[in-house]
Amino acid sequence: MGRVTVRRSVVRLSADGRRTRPDALAAEEPLELRVGGRALAVTMRTPGHDVELAHGFLLTEGVIGGREDVSVARYCDGADADGRNTYNVLDVALADGVPAPEVGVERNFYTTSSCGVCGKAALDAVRLRTRFSPAEDDVTVAADVLHTLPGQLREQQKVFESTGGLHAAGLFTASGEALVVREDVGRHNAVDKVLGWALLADRVPLRGMVLMVSGRTSFELVQKAAMAGVPVLAAVSAPSSLAADLAEEQGMTLIGFLRDSAMNVYAGVGRIG
Amino acid sequence: MGRVTVRRSVVRLSADGRRTRPDALAAEEPLELRVGGRALAVTMRTPGHDVELAHGFLLTEGVIGGREDVSVARYCDGADADGRNTYNVLDVALADGVPAPEVGVERNFYTTSSCGVCGKAALDAVRLRTRFSPAEDDVTVAADVLHTLPGQLREQQKVFESTGGLHAAGLFTASGEALVVREDVGRHNAVDKVLGWALLADRVPLRGMVLMVSGRTSFELVQKAAMAGVPVLAAVSAPSSLAADLAEEQGMTLIGFLRDSAMNVYAGVGRIG
Repeated sequence: MGRVTVRRSVVRLSADGRRTRPDALAAEEPLELRVGGRALAVTMRTPGHDVELAHGFLLTEGVIGGREDVSVARYCDGADADGRNTYNVLDVALADGVPAPEVGVERNFYTTSSCGVCGKAALDAVRLRTRFSPAEDDVTVAADVLHTLPGQLREQQKVFESTGGLHAAGLFTASGEALVVREDVGRHNAVDKVLGWALLADRVPLRGMVLMVSGRTSFELVQKAAMAGVPVLAAVSAPSSLAADLAEEQGMTLIGFLRDSAMNVYAGVGRIG
Repeated sequence: MGRVTVRRSVVRLSADGRRTRPDALAAEEPLELRVGGRALAVTMRTPGHDVELAHGFLLTEGVIGGREDVSVARYCDGADADGRNTYNVLDVALADGVPAPEVGVERNFYTTSSCGVCGKAALDAVRLRTRFSPAEDDVTVAADVLHTLPGQLREQQKVFESTGGLHAAGLFTASGEALVVREDVGRHNAVDKVLGWALLADRVPLRGMVLMVSGRTSFELVQKAAMAGVPVLAAVSAPSSLAADLAEEQGMTLIGFLRDSAMNVYAGVGRIG
């Protein structure tokens, strides 16, 4: 539990020859998420902050809208060959009156459309499920503040420094204060951990906030941000076409290639002051 | 169909001020994979090479072992608002005698273990499902050849050049000849497209071959390589702990941080000459 890096022997080959040395790798373990005792999903994640991960996942899948929708989240028993709890199964009990999710969540999005499955249907499905619209958020963020975020994120990526193997996500105020940074082998998990932290801190919807991610932005990441009411999503690297489409349709600001001195804005440029 | 990039207007903010200009984004669209008319999975992918993607996915999930296990793969009808086929639904008919997959493939791996779900169970499940063991492959690859692969992969990443938004995977012979390179917004999709290409070319199991990926290696990518019998998996960036564990247990060579003049070898160093 909480084993974020794993030591391992590695052979380094270079102009200096072969050298065997210890190395730190980013830990990856499966996490099974159960709701009311029933398996909902398995994700390959870096152990740690699993309760946040579960809350963030359930928020961004539309199952819960606030911390009051969960009555208890706890690790199940489940022992490895040495009899130790693996801490790889988390069971969430929903509060009374909160409907249990359907298993096979991913299939919900295209049953609303005549096109079978297409980008438009995916966009429509997010709109139907979003409880908090980023469109109404009139926050402005100074470009000078945004330019500080990649450096701040990188400074707080403690595990990346030692392994080179983790994605990061961070939540920042409009004045550039870091509230939380999380790392994970899966970029969607890093975002779920941040959003779950925010939900547990009663900060959802995340009005006036900037969510920053270390890599690229996909449809899935914009969807997660939209489900938490995030008005500004910024990334170090490129967005996909559907990420930009969804940000625009949700009234979200989407920034890519955010660096110290430049950025590309794909949607919602009006929030950048 | 085959729309690999999408043109979009972007606002560039830099020391030179604000400038609106057209930009190319990596296309992302959902693909629904059906087997015998029944939905098996939805993946967000870059359109193109979808038949390869479907074959690679079914191979690496253990559903098929060769091209003869598929009788036909074709796009379903499915029209967008303008009545055009979206080419986002692909239906695969399995050959007589090939068992249909269970829906919810991801859950298979931990039902074999007493630990509920843990890294060991994930490793065990891959061993049970692998038809082609990389362990018996005694190919050796010269370090000098390996050092050429990142450059070769990058040269063939045509879409990355214009968008910065795609992962790549490539298949190389032990003498460094590129056989195929595929790009996708999803790194698992890029690998599935390469392995599906190989399956359709009757080259699976991929004895003597090197699979090279542009990013990090996760458990899932090593699993896919193992299911196709790939003896050497190389990556530009870091592996996770479970990726290294699985490569070792499968007898596969796993290389990370592969650059022009250096590399880290996490498993199977004996194949590097």
